[in-house]
Amino acid sequence: MATVPFDGAKLGGLLEEAGIDALLVSSRHNVRYLTGGYYDHFHALATRGGSGQYVPFVGIPRGRFDAAFYVGGMGEKRQLEAMPIWIPAIHLNGGNGPNSARVAASLLKDRVGPNATIGVELPFLPADAFQSLQRDLPHARFVDATDLLHELRAIKTPDELATLRRVAEGVAGAIQATFRAAHDGITTRELSSVVAYQMASRGIEFLWSFTCAGPSFLRAPSSMVWERGQILHLDCGGEIGDYLADICRLGSRGEPSALARELHAECLQLQNDIRKFVRPGTTYRELAEAGEEALHALPHAEIGRFVAHGIGMVSHEQPMIATRSDRRLEAGMVLSIETEFLHPSVGHVKIEDVVAVTPNGYEGMGDIGREWQIVE
Amino acid sequence: MATVPFDGAKLGGLLEEAGIDALLVSSRHNVRYLTGGYYDHFHALATRGGSGQYVPFVGIPRGRFDAAFYVGGMGEKRQLEAMPIWIPAIHLNGGNGPNSARVAASLLKDRVGPNATIGVELPFLPADAFQSLQRDLPHARFVDATDLLHELRAIKTPDELATLRRVAEGVAGAIQATFRAAHDGITTRELSSVVAYQMASRGIEFLWSFTCAGPSFLRAPSSMVWERGQILHLDCGGEIGDYLADICRLGSRGEPSALARELHAECLQLQNDIRKFVRPGTTYRELAEAGEEALHALPHAEIGRFVAHGIGMVSHEQPMIATRSDRRLEAGMVLSIETEFLHPSVGHVKIEDVVAVTPNGYEGMGDIGREWQIVE
Repeated sequence: MATVPFDGAKLGGLLEEAGIDALLVSSRHNVRYLTGGYYDHFHALATRGGSGQYVPFVGIPRGRFDAAFYVGGMGEKRQLEAMPIWIPAIHLNGGNGPNSARVAASLLKDRVGPNATIGVELPFLPADAFQSLQRDLPHARFVDATDLLHELRAIKTPDELATLRRVAEGVAGAIQATFRAAHDGITTRELSSVVAYQMASRGIEFLWSFTCAGPSFLRAPSSMVWERGQILHLDCGGEIGDYLADICRLGSRGEPSALARELHAECLQLQNDIRKFVRPGTTYRELAEAGEEALHALPHAEIGRFVAHGIGMVSHEQPMIATRSDRRLEAGMVLSIETEFLHPSVGHVKIEDVVAVTPNGYEGMGDIGREWQIVE
Repeated sequence: MATVPFDGAKLGGLLEEAGIDALLVSSRHNVRYLTGGYYDHFHALATRGGSGQYVPFVGIPRGRFDAAFYVGGMGEKRQLEAMPIWIPAIHLNGGNGPNSARVAASLLKDRVGPNATIGVELPFLPADAFQSLQRDLPHARFVDATDLLHELRAIKTPDELATLRRVAEGVAGAIQATFRAAHDGITTRELSSVVAYQMASRGIEFLWSFTCAGPSFLRAPSSMVWERGQILHLDCGGEIGDYLADICRLGSRGEPSALARELHAECLQLQNDIRKFVRPGTTYRELAEAGEEALHALPHAEIGRFVAHGIGMVSHEQPMIATRSDRRLEAGMVLSIETEFLHPSVGHVKIEDVVAVTPNGYEGMGDIGREWQIVE
């Protein structure tokens, strides 16, 4: 049997539990996850072309990795030769949604028959590809496997943790460098460009930057100037190969006010205190409740908010702390933890960190620049 | 009636011709086109989150711009306040595909009734959103409007041309700077990172880089080293607000061979000669045939290829030269023009330019670095 770059036994169990005969994955992140990092480099960011959109497929019949297939476009041939993947059957006569779907439908019919239950990613499958699948497999049942794939990815391997650490350090470093680029008249739109450039110089793909110059609560980059005496938060996302980090740091042009300092100190206190709950065995409910309790013990609780959510290839994946379930944290899960205060005269004070669950507790990834970034 | 940032009369005509009662657009580029540049900054690159994908909608009932609507997520409120759009009805109770679709279906029912023909972008509409639309509007007919939107965008305004010029110059400049970063042992993967960084430093969003070190034809960035004595082409895409440029330049570590020089000279000759056909009134067929004829007059024609295609918000949009129709070029159309030779002992020699049709002829956008980029 083929050796797969993910937990094959876990996938088998999840598919069986869901009654899925074959998985047919099309999102960039899950194609990368299931192939072990492969994606057509040309279409990774430029998906649109001509009258359609590029769509690849990874197909995996339940329990039969030797019957797995990949469908892509003819331009991928040399890249796949240079970076071979484990999947035995490579079909490059697809490309756009309907073409790839036609090839995938034929391969699925051969492997699991015309009446199978097929797990697809409905939020990431373009309608033209879905129509083509339905037309070619009129007796198949299509069910959404998005959450099943979140579950498959819930526990990160040491390699994945190394990538997430590199992304977190790169995003935190890019943010710190961006604060230092401040000058009179700099707009939040310019700051956003600097973040993107600082990420690119660290090999990180820019995803977003919230640039909030207090006391305004406008977080979208705009023509607003970061003035002397104002705080600014940079809440930024970046990724490498679909592994993302989401980090927020706080700066000030000149000394922050006493009130701003209090709010930042409360953020840090909560962000630090909650970490003792980040360890294998803590339930999602315990973590969420501990965060709420710690928040309510703080002087400015009434304008504060605490949130924790899983992060990896998707923001808000497992562990889904918001569900407040009795499910327990496990080593290899990764969290985004955030504390914020919205104060009408100071602005939006926020610290957000990436924290991994380790066998003995936690690891703060990208823990640099959490102190005030004071610039001129 | 609302003033719209596109040719409203042309859109009305196209919708009437297609029998479409309302347009419902969801792709990032067409949302930007129809709103005049707006898109949720948080989700422009990070579309995935939780169990779904972010999907906004712009809805336009035919001929009734005052009844147009926008559907997005609640996080967009402050950005829309800071950067108002012309659309009168803003609904921010959508977000992911099914939520946005539910809101859009209700608005469409109010405006065009339950039996209308709705123009959607099937390649850019996620299946979960499409299922929701079909469920809520069971008597509506959904048709693909992707090509209609290409047609709407075919003639670029002066502002759009200015953006395309800025992108082309930025991409060409980034490529030139990347050649200069060469050093012993540099891999094509590192060169690709440098291109991304050089684009970001120019305010350009990186899309792709083909990095082909001859005599290999592997164009995907990899661990392959660009050795002394080898040519390298950098065929790169970048964008600003969904307006893209696609440019290829040629470098050599040390002096290129006489044969490499001949192939490059033939590329440039064809690229230059074909420009006299780029003017209002030339038919698509004439341009394609002139390119073929010019290619066949060159010494290495048998290993050469000439291609021209429209470019703007999408690669391979109008003018669709490949159709070889009798349609004529018009001022404001923009072309990507490429000539290449694949030689087994030299490698992949290629020059690609962005050329706009002007009232009197053509404008080469980003025409820098077309000569050999010779580095150590």
